[in-house]
Amino acid sequence: MKIVVDANVPAAEACFETLGEVVRLPGREIDAAALRDADALVVRSITRVDRTMIEAARRAGSRLGFVGSCTIGTDHIDREALSEHGIAFASAPGCNAEAVVDYVLASLLTLAEREGWQLASRRVGIVGVGNVGGRLLGRLTAMGIDCLACDPPRVELQGVGRPATAGFVDLDTLVDACDVICLHTPLVRRGPHATYHLLDAQRISALAPDTVLLNAGRGDCVDGAALRQRLAGQADLTAVLDVWETEPAIDTALADLAAIATPHVAGYSLDGKLRGTHQVYHALCRHLGLSTRLTLEDLLPPPAVSRLALNAGLAPEEALRLCLRSVYDVRRDHDSLRRESRRQGMAQGFDACRAGYPLRREAATLVVELGAEAGHLAPLLRGAGLHVVD
Amino acid sequence: MKIVVDANVPAAEACFETLGEVVRLPGREIDAAALRDADALVVRSITRVDRTMIEAARRAGSRLGFVGSCTIGTDHIDREALSEHGIAFASAPGCNAEAVVDYVLASLLTLAEREGWQLASRRVGIVGVGNVGGRLLGRLTAMGIDCLACDPPRVELQGVGRPATAGFVDLDTLVDACDVICLHTPLVRRGPHATYHLLDAQRISALAPDTVLLNAGRGDCVDGAALRQRLAGQADLTAVLDVWETEPAIDTALADLAAIATPHVAGYSLDGKLRGTHQVYHALCRHLGLSTRLTLEDLLPPPAVSRLALNAGLAPEEALRLCLRSVYDVRRDHDSLRRESRRQGMAQGFDACRAGYPLRREAATLVVELGAEAGHLAPLLRGAGLHVVD
Ligand SMILES: NC(=O)c1ccc[n+]([C@@H]2O[C@H](COP(=O)([O-])OP(=O)(O)OC[C@H]3O[C@@H](n4cnc5c(N)ncnc54)[C@H](O)[C@@H]3O)[C@@H](O)[C@H]2O)c1
Ligand SMILES: NC(=O)c1ccc[n+]([C@@H]2O[C@H](COP(=O)([O-])OP(=O)(O)OC[C@H]3O[C@@H](n4cnc5c(N)ncnc54)[C@H](O)[C@@H]3O)[C@@H](O)[C@H]2O)c1
Repeated sequence: MKIVVDANVPAAEACFETLGEVVRLPGREIDAAALRDADALVVRSITRVDRTMIEAARRAGSRLGFVGSCTIGTDHIDREALSEHGIAFASAPGCNAEAVVDYVLASLLTLAEREGWQLASRRVGIVGVGNVGGRLLGRLTAMGIDCLACDPPRVELQGVGRPATAGFVDLDTLVDACDVICLHTPLVRRGPHATYHLLDAQRISALAPDTVLLNAGRGDCVDGAALRQRLAGQADLTAVLDVWETEPAIDTALADLAAIATPHVAGYSLDGKLRGTHQVYHALCRHLGLSTRLTLEDLLPPPAVSRLALNAGLAPEEALRLCLRSVYDVRRDHDSLRRESRRQGMAQGFDACRAGYPLRREAATLVVELGAEAGHLAPLLRGAGLHVVD
Repeated sequence: MKIVVDANVPAAEACFETLGEVVRLPGREIDAAALRDADALVVRSITRVDRTMIEAARRAGSRLGFVGSCTIGTDHIDREALSEHGIAFASAPGCNAEAVVDYVLASLLTLAEREGWQLASRRVGIVGVGNVGGRLLGRLTAMGIDCLACDPPRVELQGVGRPATAGFVDLDTLVDACDVICLHTPLVRRGPHATYHLLDAQRISALAPDTVLLNAGRGDCVDGAALRQRLAGQADLTAVLDVWETEPAIDTALADLAAIATPHVAGYSLDGKLRGTHQVYHALCRHLGLSTRLTLEDLLPPPAVSRLALNAGLAPEEALRLCLRSVYDVRRDHDSLRRESRRQGMAQGFDACRAGYPLRREAATLVVELGAEAGHLAPLLRGAGLHVVD
């Protein structure tokens, strides 16, 4: 069989050559003609797989039976058209969720150090409890951090008061009760659960002083102009922003006022990218009725920082900060956005940081070895996702 | 024998109880009366050991034979009076020099990351090549960094063109030829080699754009008002300042303009403090004709971060930055000065940061284990002072 794969999908040969012939094409050049004799297609978000393309391919005699997208989003795929033509589809939901959670923990621990507080003394509110928010809730809870969650669509879907959504609250209750608010919602423009400007001018002005507001969902979920005004006027909020309205030409004044400002890279781990390929590979194997021979671990290189040994002497959050930073230090990304936006202008600088993003690994790749006197650190470090050995 | 020791000298019991009875006193309460039946006195800089005190002690019958100061400075000691009364003296020159070198490397590597350059592409000028500057020159040279040095008193003492001072240049040549200038001079107010405002308004205005100016010697060696004006006006210099004029009530505007601003803590390592005690203990042993039973290593607790394992995947300076930061991240000290000076006002905030300084270890305490593919990192990491094992 022949598998057409976007040239920018990492580890595609390792995975798909176990199943057939791999043809690599630049994402923008994948068209109906390229699919003429393809059995499967693997894309990223740059390739629009729409009805026109699918029907043209079929007319040209294509036996295409599977489309995979190594992305969490599926806006670029006409799933209805695929299903009408009997073409199986898979994407990679949640593939980069762990990386986003790393980003959130790295950011909060950095602010805690800078501002002189402890994460353990804060209540964290999570808005949007899907792949990212759900994992964040899991790790924070395992770390012993007090959390509240808000996800009305999920409550509606699963029923009020079910174990999976026990303790979920509405947005205003959450905003009222939390010192740290983390947004992990998708952009929904219409309907009862629209998220466009979910944090609007009114909610932003109601935020208590010293609140930390973190957005790593979608930029449009926050009214950026209102947030900029609050930060410029009172300077009593701390903003961590990875996503923005009008990316890449984002509001430079808002970026300057944010304590941490990064160019939509929270999810950019190597592990996440390879997990995306692997999820699609796994789906294609199932589609073909074959067993999955390669594990994700087969694809991942050993981490550059593989092991850290700790003895007594560090406060628990200090130890955690140190471990997580040796995996990912968010200040690097903040500093590069500032530097590149000054050098090249915001839009170009924003994109340049993304295009040249350095290789980043996830927290779980770090083995932390605890000395005899440091065993008490294990629950916190393990809860945060590190691989702790005694 | 009886040994009177300032209550704030760390590890004094461990060391001096091997030699006699230890009496601990707050540094400010040590007076002639306290020395009546003392054989040895061990102080820090808070106790003025002057002629009046010594002569009063002698009149009261004191058999004091040794004074030690666990500090690099000796301004608080009247060495002439001691010697007239046949009292031996020792201080702890260079005890915290390694910590200052850690500070310099941590600062330069942090700026390099933030501003997007490589330390390897810079020429570093070191002004004042004594205990600190000499060790800095040694580590940078071992790391393969191009350096120039300037120390006219040393050249005068050792003779021009001698191996120890080969390649030393005068200050204006150094300033002209270097992109990074590190000051490690003491404060000398008068004479041919006075250092008061060694970097005066004229030299500061002559600094090339993009120069990094680091001062970890004495604040008065730089004209702070002139530096502030240059930073406020052109913003084309990067300043790293650990020492200041009029400490602790330092120029807040200058501190805000400095890329890294810290409250005179460059030398504040635990290793340095214990090395100070140990140097005086060693001197007292020699004075008593005894052999030194305790090594410095006997006094030091195991480091909290003891081992880091690296594989391939990091650029050399990135690997170095990561290792050094896991020992000491200078941004923590910068952030605390900013936070505490805003909370308490500058003078109080400055002193509070020093008084509550967290326990810090030196680069040599970190064992770095290099995987098979990472062996090429060894020379740089070893040169920088880390303990590298293959
Ligand atoms: N910054 C990054 O690098 C990065 C990386 C990954 C994901 N994301 C973004 O984060 C968002 C979440 O990603 P995910 O993978 O968890 O998606 P997901 O679909 O798994 O989860 C989204 C959750 O938000 C909930 N939600 C929808 N409307 C809501 C509302 N009005 N109030 C509260 N909750 C609501 C949904 O019910 C769902 O549970 C997406 O927009 C995604 O694009 C960003
Ligand atoms: N920031 C800190 O925490 C910290 C820590 C340790 C030392 N220090 C300070 O750093 C300075 C150096 O400390 P050290 O232990 O290396 O002292 P040191 O006496 O060993 O060395 C000082 C060197 O400066 C040289 N020097 C004197 N005048 C000079 C001039 N005009 N131009 C160039 N060089 C000149 C001397 O010849 C000597 O070699 C001291 O002032 C000390 O107080 C600061």
